[in-house]
Amino acid sequence: MTTSTPAPHATTLDEVLAIIHGAGGPLAAAPVPLAQALGRVLREAVVAPEDQPPFARSGVDGFAVRVDDTATEFQIVDFLRAGDWRPRPLAPGEAVRIGTGAALPADGLQVVMIEDTAMDGERVRVLQRDTVRHVRERGEDARRGQPLLAAPCRLSAGALGLLASLGVVAPSVARLPRVVHVATGNEIVPPEQTPAHGQIRDSNSTLIRAFLAARGVPVAQHRAPEEFAAAAALLRDPAGGAPAADLLLLSGGASVGEHDFTRRLLADLGFEILVSKAASRPGKPLIVARRGAALAFGLPGNPLAHYVCLHLFVQAALDAFAGLPAKSPFHPGVLAAELDNEGAARETLWPAHAAATDGTVALEPLRWISSGDLSSLGRANALIRVPGGAGRLARGTTVPFVSTVPPA
Amino acid sequence: MTTSTPAPHATTLDEVLAIIHGAGGPLAAAPVPLAQALGRVLREAVVAPEDQPPFARSGVDGFAVRVDDTATEFQIVDFLRAGDWRPRPLAPGEAVRIGTGAALPADGLQVVMIEDTAMDGERVRVLQRDTVRHVRERGEDARRGQPLLAAPCRLSAGALGLLASLGVVAPSVARLPRVVHVATGNEIVPPEQTPAHGQIRDSNSTLIRAFLAARGVPVAQHRAPEEFAAAAALLRDPAGGAPAADLLLLSGGASVGEHDFTRRLLADLGFEILVSKAASRPGKPLIVARRGAALAFGLPGNPLAHYVCLHLFVQAALDAFAGLPAKSPFHPGVLAAELDNEGAARETLWPAHAAATDGTVALEPLRWISSGDLSSLGRANALIRVPGGAGRLARGTTVPFVSTVPPA
Repeated sequence: MTTSTPAPHATTLDEVLAIIHGAGGPLAAAPVPLAQALGRVLREAVVAPEDQPPFARSGVDGFAVRVDDTATEFQIVDFLRAGDWRPRPLAPGEAVRIGTGAALPADGLQVVMIEDTAMDGERVRVLQRDTVRHVRERGEDARRGQPLLAAPCRLSAGALGLLASLGVVAPSVARLPRVVHVATGNEIVPPEQTPAHGQIRDSNSTLIRAFLAARGVPVAQHRAPEEFAAAAALLRDPAGGAPAADLLLLSGGASVGEHDFTRRLLADLGFEILVSKAASRPGKPLIVARRGAALAFGLPGNPLAHYVCLHLFVQAALDAFAGLPAKSPFHPGVLAAELDNEGAARETLWPAHAAATDGTVALEPLRWISSGDLSSLGRANALIRVPGGAGRLARGTTVPFVSTVPPA
Repeated sequence: MTTSTPAPHATTLDEVLAIIHGAGGPLAAAPVPLAQALGRVLREAVVAPEDQPPFARSGVDGFAVRVDDTATEFQIVDFLRAGDWRPRPLAPGEAVRIGTGAALPADGLQVVMIEDTAMDGERVRVLQRDTVRHVRERGEDARRGQPLLAAPCRLSAGALGLLASLGVVAPSVARLPRVVHVATGNEIVPPEQTPAHGQIRDSNSTLIRAFLAARGVPVAQHRAPEEFAAAAALLRDPAGGAPAADLLLLSGGASVGEHDFTRRLLADLGFEILVSKAASRPGKPLIVARRGAALAFGLPGNPLAHYVCLHLFVQAALDAFAGLPAKSPFHPGVLAAELDNEGAARETLWPAHAAATDGTVALEPLRWISSGDLSSLGRANALIRVPGGAGRLARGTTVPFVSTVPPA
């Protein structure tokens, strides 16, 4: 006579995050060209290699004259456009026509805007003149050695523009993790195939590929029947060792024994099981495992559980690999409608649509029925963290949430 | 004797946005595979093509018995795993072992969780039984025909998972715009080159490529000297017409006459000038032009002006091409520190770092000196809209801002 095996210890959400950050070490950093650096995590702080701007230049189109020259008519002795560099001292009564961005030919000059002048051949008359010098001084934006980008930080388009302006054309960034994904489950068919009664389409492979692509991470994807040997063979490299991956994602099927199957498979590959079950829902049958510097996740096959585990736990692994510090992904928001979690004893991650509206982040809880229910995910961009036993939370309640928008 | 030409009419920020949305029509939609659909804008609403889930299935591992069968011991007559489909009526005293996700063999059944049973060979004893059926009913997530994704909407990873689950493997999305970018300006050198005195590195080409890449849009980039013929030649297709682009971006140099140069170039290419100058700063010398369904932007060469014009105006053009409705990109946030805009008569877009902190969006204004100053852009993820003549805005003031994070 057999009864069910005792349930493994359930690990709380915060514990799971801490375990992932403790186990997933930073991957090595290497220089990459700017064209490949978008969204990558900078690992060496960048300081200004020279004064910014590196030379005093004109802020306007106009005429450069000596600050101490009170004449109203000047002889035009040169015309400097942006990119030109022809230094010369100016004598009283001399002016240099100068374009925006052009290097000033000497110190102690002021630029009179062209709108305030009248030009006649080689002479110019100043119609009005104020005390503004219209000069962008050398180093006024940043001094040589001044920190301009802290590390670690994710490189945005603006940050890449800044790096280009500094001549930092190969910033040192965390290398991308090598990710292998295997979808198991005899009940799944490819999305382009019509499922027979009792079968469902594999949505998790699409979800995982897109989740990773949105974070700039490629993935090698496989589909394995649930037989142990077939799945294990897929994951072994030709030399017979464990997969040459930094991150191994196993999408569970829903079948009986699937959870034990994934645990055995990971143990067989030499992984140490760190988490066997999560205390939060959806996504309770989560497995987290480690082998050296590599991490593996056994992700519960149900699509919404996948969505939650990816955005909370796999995101934490990506952050750890990138060398980003462990910090809570949760921020407070305000419920835009009642959230009815009546009857849920466990902590719940609830799909929501977050919008910055009246100065607060308003969270609209989206309808979902079960962890197999994907219907809310068309609009979801956040997950609300609802404590176990919270019951109904009124509109206007402040609640923690995690954004599911790719970090930028 | 010549004076400066009269300044062209300055168009307000809201007017510029409205002009762009009025001129930039939606590009055609076409089906793309799910693997290419991330971040693309869906153009046809998606409804459930069948009930979701399409069949009643077990929510747990356990034993299916008749709801009206009050026996405590049952004969096990089958074992159904997820993916199986073997319909059969159950007689009183009969149970079917069933896995999570497996199709129920008949109507009127309840699943007793395996934890509440004791199995002995071909018989199973129910240790405790409650009224929960543990059945995911056909159609409980969504009924056939129920709208699941509205159009237009940008496709997230979650939305793609939903589409895969529905078998919508080639959603209809807006085609990507063809974008051509030409950087002009004799003063610029490539970022990998050491500039001579008076020269600066071209950061705008990197910024534009990354801005577009973050939005999934490729770009053909060229660098042209400021000579009219050279720039025009770059932009003409072999047949002598205007460029076969939906979006033409011209990064101005800072030189004298550059603005007129861009206007003449666009006019020569058959574009109608819609905007000659923006009333806001940085980015005043903005040009917006149209030729048929194509849009062109003359972007002021200063890097911060580029950043502002890209995230406000070119973003609006991308949204219009994608078929997204015109709406204000501004949301309210709260100043996390004083913003000193003393002396600025014109409306200002101020680089800031936005963070969701205590339930509100806190905006930290970043230091910048001039429109050539990129130093703030390492951390910027927002632009605060500061009215002209606002002076100092106190910490805690609610202000409108636009996010510069790529839309997701």
